[in-house]
Amino acid sequence: MVALVPFGGRIVMLGYGSVGQSVVPVLERHFDLPLSNITIIEADDHADKFAPFAAKGMNYVRLSLTPENLTASLGSYLKAGDLCINLTAGVDALSIIDWCHHNGVLYVDTSLEPWADQYGEEGIPAAKRTHYESHERMRAMAAPWGGKGPTAVITHGANPGIVNHFVKAATLDIAQAMNLDFSTPKSREDWADLFMRTGTKVIHVSERDTQRSSIPKEPDEFVNTWSVLGYWGEATYPAEMGWGMHENMLPPMGQHFTHGPGNAIYMHKPGGLTLVRSWVPKGGPIFGFVISHSESITLSHYFTAYDQDNRPVHRPTVHYAYHPSADAIVSLREVMMKDWQPPAKVRIMQDDIVDGIDELGVLLLGHGKTAWWYGSQLSIHEARKIIPGQNATALQVCAGVISACVWAVKNPDRGFCEPEYLPHAEILEIAKPYLGPVASVQSDWTPLRDRAGLNFEPWVDHQDPWQFNNFLVR
Amino acid sequence: MVALVPFGGRIVMLGYGSVGQSVVPVLERHFDLPLSNITIIEADDHADKFAPFAAKGMNYVRLSLTPENLTASLGSYLKAGDLCINLTAGVDALSIIDWCHHNGVLYVDTSLEPWADQYGEEGIPAAKRTHYESHERMRAMAAPWGGKGPTAVITHGANPGIVNHFVKAATLDIAQAMNLDFSTPKSREDWADLFMRTGTKVIHVSERDTQRSSIPKEPDEFVNTWSVLGYWGEATYPAEMGWGMHENMLPPMGQHFTHGPGNAIYMHKPGGLTLVRSWVPKGGPIFGFVISHSESITLSHYFTAYDQDNRPVHRPTVHYAYHPSADAIVSLREVMMKDWQPPAKVRIMQDDIVDGIDELGVLLLGHGKTAWWYGSQLSIHEARKIIPGQNATALQVCAGVISACVWAVKNPDRGFCEPEYLPHAEILEIAKPYLGPVASVQSDWTPLRDRAGLNFEPWVDHQDPWQFNNFLVR
Repeated sequence: MVALVPFGGRIVMLGYGSVGQSVVPVLERHFDLPLSNITIIEADDHADKFAPFAAKGMNYVRLSLTPENLTASLGSYLKAGDLCINLTAGVDALSIIDWCHHNGVLYVDTSLEPWADQYGEEGIPAAKRTHYESHERMRAMAAPWGGKGPTAVITHGANPGIVNHFVKAATLDIAQAMNLDFSTPKSREDWADLFMRTGTKVIHVSERDTQRSSIPKEPDEFVNTWSVLGYWGEATYPAEMGWGMHENMLPPMGQHFTHGPGNAIYMHKPGGLTLVRSWVPKGGPIFGFVISHSESITLSHYFTAYDQDNRPVHRPTVHYAYHPSADAIVSLREVMMKDWQPPAKVRIMQDDIVDGIDELGVLLLGHGKTAWWYGSQLSIHEARKIIPGQNATALQVCAGVISACVWAVKNPDRGFCEPEYLPHAEILEIAKPYLGPVASVQSDWTPLRDRAGLNFEPWVDHQDPWQFNNFLVR
Repeated sequence: MVALVPFGGRIVMLGYGSVGQSVVPVLERHFDLPLSNITIIEADDHADKFAPFAAKGMNYVRLSLTPENLTASLGSYLKAGDLCINLTAGVDALSIIDWCHHNGVLYVDTSLEPWADQYGEEGIPAAKRTHYESHERMRAMAAPWGGKGPTAVITHGANPGIVNHFVKAATLDIAQAMNLDFSTPKSREDWADLFMRTGTKVIHVSERDTQRSSIPKEPDEFVNTWSVLGYWGEATYPAEMGWGMHENMLPPMGQHFTHGPGNAIYMHKPGGLTLVRSWVPKGGPIFGFVISHSESITLSHYFTAYDQDNRPVHRPTVHYAYHPSADAIVSLREVMMKDWQPPAKVRIMQDDIVDGIDELGVLLLGHGKTAWWYGSQLSIHEARKIIPGQNATALQVCAGVISACVWAVKNPDRGFCEPEYLPHAEILEIAKPYLGPVASVQSDWTPLRDRAGLNFEPWVDHQDPWQFNNFLVR
């Protein structure tokens, strides 16, 4: 086991859903602090699940965070030198980050969540219901901080989070396989340069979750392997992707953003209705939802190479290609056909899972080795050995959360940090015990391979396999 | 129980899948013949399931029908005056129909199946992989028969079959609810006229199957409530629909046919990739696959009204809107993402079903009462009471098969018959014991109702809710 990190502050965790429940048991594996210095605050009631930790001295508070009580609540439980781990869904992350910054509190989250009522809110323009917008707002808020202040690591779960570091690890493996002359980059510029030298045009965060339950899903029951609200909310967002400089044609309903760095686009339709072809090593070819995710924005931004006049010369297309569990696929379909009404009956698969793996990684495409997948292939059985009672999906997110927490505590004055600005090797080393087998695999897969001619697809570009329209399922 | 129909011929049933297994037990409920005059021929091996019927004297033959052995095989088991019930998938129906006609054998099937290798065969032009094409070929073959010869009832399972009769029943109920002055039509022309007078613009065969199994589906295992090959094969076919005269705009990839009566169109993409909004009374709003089906062709043809110069003046859009069981939805998705490769591992849900209903009916839209659904709401529990060991889906198909068989035996010289030319009330009376509750329900549902503005959909016609593009999920 790794050496414990001494921590003199308190840890306050907001949210105790499937991810929170996996993080709580591992806090004492990484931090040396009195367990009575740990407080969990949640809106739901999982007091029964928390009982063993309450018995150890941890504190539990039931409290629903609202725009009205947020600041006062944070002030009641957090002070300078503490760590706030935000694992809520539907609570405005920027408000919490801002408060933590101004109150000397370390901060880690997994997603730039808006208030819940902004999900599926048709009154908000599509361009505003995007992670591009969230990150632009976040960066604008943090700009005056000048890179200083208490460390705030945002969007650092599994994806976004761990996968962002997988891209660097994969880039090194590809560069090596291509026999490029290189050393491990030290700066963003060097990473973007090496990435460009590999020729990578597309990054999918490609995931196939095959976890399945012994309990047959009822019609219109929403079953997922992680937060139902989180999944539902993201799926209502427009499909969104970092937009590569090799792309020739916008997809149907594709829109550029009219402000900011312009490294992404969105499609004016929900990600839950937008499928692309992708690939994972064990699961094979998949259809994945292009669900709006932070890593599409931050990875394409980070890996943009510029010329000497600061004009972008290379940028990859980056997006999620998510094949959820079978029950979650049907659950989302049911919600969509019921006009996106939030589901009345929900269930997160845990002890009822009989088998399956969550195969989650990054698929780099278009480089000198065609395709390369780097990621975690964690089975439910391995997950249970690592943290009893938790599923594979929760563990992968937990890996991102705990590694960011450890790094933040060790590096408490780095200010606002997107995941790409954390040291990838160090983070993956902390995360490794929670990821199961980590594979780095070359493949000859392309979206044009073995493609039945049953569709009439005049938009397919047979000269350049890596055009987004070749991936899109229409 | 209904009076037994004496039958002096033999009954030879081709195929003993889920539908065949539901038909065999009911033959003796309807026909008075020595059970030794019944022979089942199948390519697969369900000898164990057949054992109770073998014990009663029925005959069982394992034989795979191929282009090479088909004629000889039929000749070995069938002679003039016999009844051939064709429940195979992937055996060319037209070849069997032709043979039966020329050999004095009565004939009933549930689908104009092609040879299996024509499914998913990209070398065959899309327009040829349609039910429009199958029916045009069938009609051309039967034209010289002049409406004479041994009765051959085609496409008479649940849908197509029973649902075709539901349309007439629904039309009568709508006409009555609208207080139209009418009597029950006696001819095709009168039916088309009454139908036009109701103002019906669209017919969905709308189905939601909520049957679910206690056995968790494995990844890439194909699980269905009926024939896997049948479902897979139909889903590879282009989406196809009878095309109403009110339609203003072809859908994306929409194509007219260049021969025949022109009452249908197809989309140059598989039905398995084509979703529409529809509605069923218990299941609510659904997304359904526009899977190519015979009833789209024959219903839109039958219900076309003509003026005195024989020019069409009213025709509905007609298509399937199929929400299969949850496992079947995921199974089809998996097959599509694996490039339509036929699944290696298959399972038909039967005794493992824990709950659910197959809600299958017709949704007539755009008339004076907005929307009207007429159909069967058969639960697995009721199905098992009616025929032990069978599921709801099989029973609904069985209802169509047995009613057509009874009618054919009673009316043995009607030549080639599409379902619409059978007497709907008489057929539904025979079918009723197998359909569970049959509902006739008015609704105010339209495809524009409760439609979240999350998509940018400039093609939506807010003036005319009944345009196909309003239903299409894009």
